[in-house]
Amino acid sequence: MDEADVLAPLRQEFTLNDGEIYLDGNSLGPVSTSVRRRVREVIDDEWGRGLVRSWNDAGWMGEPTRLGDRIAPLIGAQPGEVLVADTLTFLIAKLIGAALEHRPDRHVVLTDAANFHSDIYIIEAMCERAGRPVTMKTIDRDRLEEYLNDDVALVELTQVDYRTGESLDMAGITEQVHAAGALMLWDFAHSAGAVPLDVTGADVDFAAGCGYKYLNGGPGAPAFLYVRKSWQGQLRNPLPGWLGHARPFDFELTYEPADGMQAFVTSSPSIVALAALDGALDIWDRTSMDQVRVKSLALTDLFIGLAEERLPGIFEVVTPLDHARRGSQVALRHPEGYGIIQALIENGVIGDFRAPDICRFGFTPLYLRFVDVFDAVERISGVMATESFRDDRFAVHNAVT
Amino acid sequence: MDEADVLAPLRQEFTLNDGEIYLDGNSLGPVSTSVRRRVREVIDDEWGRGLVRSWNDAGWMGEPTRLGDRIAPLIGAQPGEVLVADTLTFLIAKLIGAALEHRPDRHVVLTDAANFHSDIYIIEAMCERAGRPVTMKTIDRDRLEEYLNDDVALVELTQVDYRTGESLDMAGITEQVHAAGALMLWDFAHSAGAVPLDVTGADVDFAAGCGYKYLNGGPGAPAFLYVRKSWQGQLRNPLPGWLGHARPFDFELTYEPADGMQAFVTSSPSIVALAALDGALDIWDRTSMDQVRVKSLALTDLFIGLAEERLPGIFEVVTPLDHARRGSQVALRHPEGYGIIQALIENGVIGDFRAPDICRFGFTPLYLRFVDVFDAVERISGVMATESFRDDRFAVHNAVT
Repeated sequence: MDEADVLAPLRQEFTLNDGEIYLDGNSLGPVSTSVRRRVREVIDDEWGRGLVRSWNDAGWMGEPTRLGDRIAPLIGAQPGEVLVADTLTFLIAKLIGAALEHRPDRHVVLTDAANFHSDIYIIEAMCERAGRPVTMKTIDRDRLEEYLNDDVALVELTQVDYRTGESLDMAGITEQVHAAGALMLWDFAHSAGAVPLDVTGADVDFAAGCGYKYLNGGPGAPAFLYVRKSWQGQLRNPLPGWLGHARPFDFELTYEPADGMQAFVTSSPSIVALAALDGALDIWDRTSMDQVRVKSLALTDLFIGLAEERLPGIFEVVTPLDHARRGSQVALRHPEGYGIIQALIENGVIGDFRAPDICRFGFTPLYLRFVDVFDAVERISGVMATESFRDDRFAVHNAVT
Repeated sequence: MDEADVLAPLRQEFTLNDGEIYLDGNSLGPVSTSVRRRVREVIDDEWGRGLVRSWNDAGWMGEPTRLGDRIAPLIGAQPGEVLVADTLTFLIAKLIGAALEHRPDRHVVLTDAANFHSDIYIIEAMCERAGRPVTMKTIDRDRLEEYLNDDVALVELTQVDYRTGESLDMAGITEQVHAAGALMLWDFAHSAGAVPLDVTGADVDFAAGCGYKYLNGGPGAPAFLYVRKSWQGQLRNPLPGWLGHARPFDFELTYEPADGMQAFVTSSPSIVALAALDGALDIWDRTSMDQVRVKSLALTDLFIGLAEERLPGIFEVVTPLDHARRGSQVALRHPEGYGIIQALIENGVIGDFRAPDICRFGFTPLYLRFVDVFDAVERISGVMATESFRDDRFAVHNAVT
């Protein structure tokens, strides 16, 4: 399978530890050669030599929109519809605040009770600051239809579930939400670079995602924001700043938004952080989401198949077997999941644990080999056979992102 | 003067262009050797080798508070009172939102009509979202007393004026504001690393500043936030995120703030961006704000003295001559200021222009020599004598931050 893999040459661009199988690219992608090159270039030449002039001369002012245009094809957006800035939580805050102004007679925001908790905190906070009574309801997403009515202003869902790896039907749900007169905001944290997305075809209003998972932009990398072209110019950035002003260097006391996505810039994200993400995006010049998807499904199919064959009855496979409903990770449920992940890390298989009982394994086609999948299942079998996961050292949870 | 300068050896840590006099460190500080070292270490070792484990093993989770503790001495704060995160505009948003909840019966926020425009935009936006009628009033700061009354919830001022370089009396104004029962928020954008600050002595409630000017943390570097110890635990972060939760890895649906400053973290700032700032802060291990202040005043005194001697009647010196009221920059007013700055840049003197008529020159004692001040005035004299600033190329404004 590795010999037939058209993506195999890309692996050499990434820094991976010898003998280690990294199945946590869904949490933090690895460093690539072009990240180092681009960060060095920005620090040594643009910042080092150009100094303050680089805001104009090196195009720093335009980096949020230029990088947005690089990400646009990965989610099916058009040029001028994506911006890179801030962190995912802030971008969701901006979109919630902006969207609520466009459904002034509605008082409910629906989100998934199984959503990533940071989404829930910020949605609730922005509802509280909407300027009118707005309530967030956390629901069972499979029963969305029961909750949709003419009081729902906005629905926010994470497109790939961070725990189970289930991929939701973006087009179908968006259509359902629109039919109820509500707006749709998708969180692409576990989708961008992981599954093919078509925001244009699905008529998505708004979306946001992060740069540090499948986009490999580095820990805490800047996030990205999608606003459909037809919404631009109609939305107010609820957290405005000078770099989103139409004339930032005229120092006007009254805020007047810039055209297009620039209005959603508050202040400049770190140019060094943007450089890392910029470098990381180079890899996408050599492949496409369609190619990545074919290999992603082959990797997760192989993992699920081998796990069922080699570890029968030990884990519950939580991730959907149906390709249409699967992201690029596999979640295995086990009551002793925390210790299992710790023991695996000691055995060179890096996955992660999500409370209360999920072992997560991310499969990232840009740098994983099929032999890695085989070896990972071998090592899981070894850990389960020796019961090394029951070591006292693993009794206390100390999980990471 | 350079021979007697105890800070002279620090200059070799910075990357500066040969023959160029960089008087724009008040906009963007230069790269230092320890920035390169620390960024390389984080990318190659912590991210490259440690991968996702570095959130715990390399202490990434604690970087916002660890870096905050490094900045604390520069503003007279105690350990545990400063956090590094986000950008300055977002931090001001958090503080405005949090502070307004503690003066629920008051309806006015006062700020300076000459404040940096981004402060004004975000204050107004957060007033609008306060959950009750709150009005921002932009005032003449010299007449603050006339506006203080029992309806004023909060006063926000920038401690050193970004245009004129005037340093406000932090202790006196804070006392005046407290006497009126209001809270005080200081913007330290042009103060941190530039003038000695004593937030503890002045009993300041809140402050925020940026990392890319006198702290040399790189373009768009993360900002910092100060909350007086006695306020911690009482304030709600109005833009909450998972990393500010008491138990971020328990994935709870209800937000419960972490203890201390951690509650003001929303999501992780870029670790690569933090690394650049971390490296930049190393220089402060070799000096103190008191040493820096002595040289800063000597540099600005020399510049003002030479400018008045060599360029009599050509510029208006806008920056106060009184040391107690002077920051670390000198502003010269001239109706053709834009062209003058452009002509100076071509002659290797990097200052910047602030509309409508201010030529700004920042004096940063960590890497400037007295001979640079002398040479800068020589070159300004040359530009004024040849009138090269009236070149047609400088007719259109295209200023940078």
